[in-house]
Amino acid sequence: MHEFTLHPQLAADTWHIASLPLCDVLLMNDANYPWLILVPRVADARELLDLDEDDRTRAWREIDLAAQALRDLFTPDKLNIATLGNMVSQLHVHVIARFKSDTAWPKPVWGARPPMPYADPVVTERIAGLRARLRSSAA
Amino acid sequence: MHEFTLHPQLAADTWHIASLPLCDVLLMNDANYPWLILVPRVADARELLDLDEDDRTRAWREIDLAAQALRDLFTPDKLNIATLGNMVSQLHVHVIARFKSDTAWPKPVWGARPPMPYADPVVTERIAGLRARLRSSAA
Repeated sequence: MHEFTLHPQLAADTWHIASLPLCDVLLMNDANYPWLILVPRVADARELLDLDEDDRTRAWREIDLAAQALRDLFTPDKLNIATLGNMVSQLHVHVIARFKSDTAWPKPVWGARPPMPYADPVVTERIAGLRARLRSSAA
Repeated sequence: MHEFTLHPQLAADTWHIASLPLCDVLLMNDANYPWLILVPRVADARELLDLDEDDRTRAWREIDLAAQALRDLFTPDKLNIATLGNMVSQLHVHVIARFKSDTAWPKPVWGARPPMPYADPVVTERIAGLRARLRSSAA
């Protein structure tokens, strides 16, 4: 048994927003889209099916929370929710707010455009807004 | 209130495999990957968040069933699970068996390659195999 540690690629590409009961919630450093990544803190999990049933239920609930937070904060035209993991095998779930005006619409975001790193103070405000929203809805 | 009817684009691109308690399970007509699509039979739903809590629980459970069926039948290197809906707004969830040897790996499948329609008798066998597996695991 290993202990859980966040994959270095995910750590490099994101800010930590919150730790929910099962998942760490991360903000992708790509200002093109409000883009969260949820990572269950379960060592060696690659698929949702690798989680036991209780954890799977927790994961779904936390994905819903993240989606609701993005919806409340950004009023997107569409939410995109996906677990792919073809590149980074550690189980992680994308929850992305999409807009008809965004740079990749209507394509999926992966590989569509080079990431656009956030500038300060935008990211500081965004992180604060997401933290407040997740805290209130998780309560 | 409208009645649920399957979006014509989804109907045109797929075969009907099974009707689970909430979702119709469809097989995408693309022999590049074993690719299921789950469509909750709820009129006007666009997001998982549009489902009430009971239906959302049902949807996640049926996504698990579909993923498990693909894993049992095809032993993929990775499962890809996603709800995007940027093109077809009717709520639908992709569950796709991915292989390091497949034509789009490691990219996501959407838009990566032109679909490769199934030939008979491959599709007949595939449909029968999926039906049998979903029936036994849903029981």
